[in-house]
Formats: sequence, C-alpha cells, structure tokens
Amino acid sequence: MPDPHRAAGAPGKVLSITSLANPIVKEIRGLALPKNRRSSGLFVAEGLKLVADAMEANWTIRDFVHAARAAEEPHVARLAAQARARGGDVISVSEAVLAKITRRENPQTVIGVFQQRLLPMTQIRAEAAPVWVVLENIRDPGNLGTIIRTSDAVGAGGVILVGDTVDPFSIEAVRATMGSVFHVPIARLTRIEFETLRRRWPGTVAGTHLAGAVDYRSVTYEAPTLLVMGNEQAGLSPDMAALCDVLVKIPMAGKADSLNLAIATGVMLFEVLRGRLKLDG
Amino acid sequence: MPDPHRAAGAPGKVLSITSLANPIVKEIRGLALPKNRRSSGLFVAEGLKLVADAMEANWTIRDFVHAARAAEEPHVARLAAQARARGGDVISVSEAVLAKITRRENPQTVIGVFQQRLLPMTQIRAEAAPVWVVLENIRDPGNLGTIIRTSDAVGAGGVILVGDTVDPFSIEAVRATMGSVFHVPIARLTRIEFETLRRRWPGTVAGTHLAGAVDYRSVTYEAPTLLVMGNEQAGLSPDMAALCDVLVKIPMAGKADSLNLAIATGVMLFEVLRGRLKLDG
Repeated sequence: MPDPHRAAGAPGKVLSITSLANPIVKEIRGLALPKNRRSSGLFVAEGLKLVADAMEANWTIRDFVHAARAAEEPHVARLAAQARARGGDVISVSEAVLAKITRRENPQTVIGVFQQRLLPMTQIRAEAAPVWVVLENIRDPGNLGTIIRTSDAVGAGGVILVGDTVDPFSIEAVRATMGSVFHVPIARLTRIEFETLRRRWPGTVAGTHLAGAVDYRSVTYEAPTLLVMGNEQAGLSPDMAALCDVLVKIPMAGKADSLNLAIATGVMLFEVLRGRLKLDG
Repeated sequence: MPDPHRAAGAPGKVLSITSLANPIVKEIRGLALPKNRRSSGLFVAEGLKLVADAMEANWTIRDFVHAARAAEEPHVARLAAQARARGGDVISVSEAVLAKITRRENPQTVIGVFQQRLLPMTQIRAEAAPVWVVLENIRDPGNLGTIIRTSDAVGAGGVILVGDTVDPFSIEAVRATMGSVFHVPIARLTRIEFETLRRRWPGTVAGTHLAGAVDYRSVTYEAPTLLVMGNEQAGLSPDMAALCDVLVKIPMAGKADSLNLAIATGVMLFEVLRGRLKLDG
C-alpha cells in the first residue's frame, strides 16, 4: 500500500540513527512478529545478496538500512543510491542499532525493508508454467523457503499457500529462499478459493500422500500440473486429498517413516518435469 | 568409551536436581559446544520420540533427564526404567534446570545423553547397500540432518563425512534427522582415507557438480554407487571432483542458480535408486 507520508516519485530521505530507542528501530525490529508484518504489509530481507536480488527484481523498498562503517563500500553505496532514487529511505546505523534491529550478535551489514507482494488469485494463469506448487498447512519456515527456492530452480509458475501455511515473508523463510522469494509468485488462497481454482485447472492435480497407492513415477503428469503437498506431520487433509486427480506415493526402503517435506517436494517436482528439464550445454 | 566410575552391568543411579549450579547441569548444557562433544564423545537427543528411537536402536545412554512433573507419564516412566536397566542414570529435574540444560524457554519433557557412534572405515562394506552418500565440507547442520534422514528413507548404507563437514551430533543436526541418526551408519574420513576407500570401491563413484557436463538422468549408476556431494557454496573441491568416475548435473529452468544441498542430494538419491525402489503395496 502507498505510504501517505511520502510524495510519489520523490527520492527517499537520508537518516542516521544511533539511538536504540528510535521508533524506526522499534518498528523494523517488530517486523520479526507475524502480526506486525500482517498489519504493515512490510518485511525484512537481510544481507547484501538478498537486498540486491529484491532491488533487481523491482520489489518496492521502503528502507535501506546499512552499518555506518560500510557506507563507503561500493556495493553498499550503489544499492543505497538505487534505493533512494526509488523513494526508499537510506538509514545509516550504529553496530548496536543493527544488532538490535536484527536480533543478532553478528548482523549482516545491510538490511532492506520491502513491501510484501502476493499474486492475486485472478492472476494465476495456469498455462504460464508446466507446474505449480500448492502447500497446505506448512509449519516450518525453512521448509517453505526451500520449497520456494526449488520451485524457482525448476521454473514453476508459483507457490500457492492454502490453509494455515506459515508466512513466506518471515526472516527464516526469506533466508531459506536464497532470493527466490523475489522471483517466484506466491499466492495465498482459502480452501474455498482453492476449490474454485482447482475446478477450472486444465492439467493434472497430483497430491503426494503416504496413503497414496500410485507410484509417483507411474503417472503421466499433464501440464500444467498442480502439485499438492500437505503438512509436515499430518500430510494432506482429507478435504484437500479429495480434490486431487491422483494421490501418489514416493517409495522408501529404510527405517525412516517419511521424507522431509521439502525433499519430497523436490523429488516430485523433478519427476513431474522429467521430460521437460534439459541441460543447457 | 566406558565410564570408569560405573560398574559394568550395574543399573544407573536415580538423581534429582533442582540447582542450576549442579555440575551435571553444566556438563550436559556444555554438550551444545563442539569441543565438549569431541572431548566427551557424548551428545544430546531432545524429546520423547528421539530418545525412544535411540533406545530402541540400542544406543548407549548415559543420562535420561526428565521434567519432575512428567515422572508419572507412562512413556516417560517406561523409558526411564529402560535407561536405568541399561546402566543409564535417571535424572529428575525442575523446569528451570531443564530450560537451562536445553537453552530453551519451552524445553522438551525429556532429553537423553548418549554415546556417539561412528562407523570405522574398516567396517564400511560397500556391498551392504546399493548406495552410500559422501559429503565434503558441509556447513549447515540442518542440511546434514536432512540428508541423513533421506539416506535412511532410501536404505543407503551410510553417510561418509569428508573434510570439514559439521558434526552430525549437534542438537540441530540430530533434530533434523528425525531419529535417522540412530539408524544410518555415519563415518568420518580424511581426504586421504577417502582416496583409499574410493580406489577399491566396486561401483560407480558419481559426483554432483554445477560444472558437470552429464545429465544426472543419463548415467547408469552401478551399485554400490558412491554419491559424492560438495559444500553448499563452493560445491565439490577439485581434488574430490577428480576422484569421481562421473560428474553429473541436475538441470534447472528458473532464476535460482542452485538447489539447496539437501534437495539436490534427495533428487540424486532417488535417481540413483530409480530402478530399485518399489512401493510395498
């Protein structure tokens, strides 16, 4: 949402903060909490690589925060100039402030505060990609971030979050995406909205399920495939399972009773795309 | 190593600790540090499931620590009796002590202190399994734990750590294995020892490498396959890459420039075992 205090098109301000009690410090630090991310629509990306990825992918930056000592470093100066030209504030802070904002003893040199971006349901164009990933009730931010990264790596159309799936804009999730959160469209749908999407889905809707009776390698996945993965402990809910064309299972051979969710998703994505992914060389 | 203070075959002691200053509290808490795990040969498993898995797999328990309030819970009482019968001490502690030991505000109800177990090089029997995993210089305990879990799930013979790979007995790694650390043999070899092992290895030695020119699906992986994976950032070192029969690459299609290491290992394991893994049903 637009910031009412900021004139459209105007460059951002340049600030310096050394007080731990500064309200901006408190506000950014507060973005570690889901409720504050929800109410503000903002999130934090830590580190030069992530911030550069976000800027390159044209995500809207509100604040570019950097350690005062790093102001002259070429990468930092270039990103700061870019952020400011796009209307973001550039905030130089002391080590103590940076540690407070990031809740870490050895914080990254820069962090960016960006506006969240979700793909509206109406903009999910099934045919835009050979596969899309649907996640129901995922609990672990690291798993979610890794799945977003893998979805990016295989060229998935997007990741669709259904039910109580954790926030893709938490620090942990963003970090695990290694920047892919800025490249892969993410949508959040209710179960009812997902039913609507699914009803008009032109390709195979495949769920992975421990109770699935079909070997994951025996299915012809018609593109665009909707790959549906469930919660880490419980798997797919019966309601979601009932919405799938086919429930597949990945065979195992050892004592572990299940795969990590991100691993199962990765194995499934490469299977769905088996006939499509090619080495460039 | 055997505990000189404990008579062989004698049941363990039953203790109660409420003082945060108790030396046992300090010692167990200290196992969060690599140097203390190294010098003691001990490690911590947190939570009923992990402790039960370890006991069932006959790992040697030194201490079974439980919240005093949980002493009467059937699962806890049964594990406590079992631990004591095997010579482990049973230690009832206050909430404050448990929080201190585990460095967590909401600790698990039980933790177990176990003796580490590594597979000696001489006991690596290549033919015992269709695939073994070799990891060089892995940095992330979560990745290592997840790879151990996946190795278990596919029935790999073991996980062989080469170079500076992180400790598989850290809390984070053990947790990520979901108990598989107690089922999958783990060996730690120097590069020189690995060269010796590799020289007499009867099957395909396949490395995954971003510079690999061979599609990972185009190789015939002769069993027992040695799957060699490198560091999260740098990949395989040139020395390790040179020891492989073939360097394969997993094709990608998006903007992400690499897969998470545990994902790449999972995709590779299911490819190596493609002709072998079958659904039971």
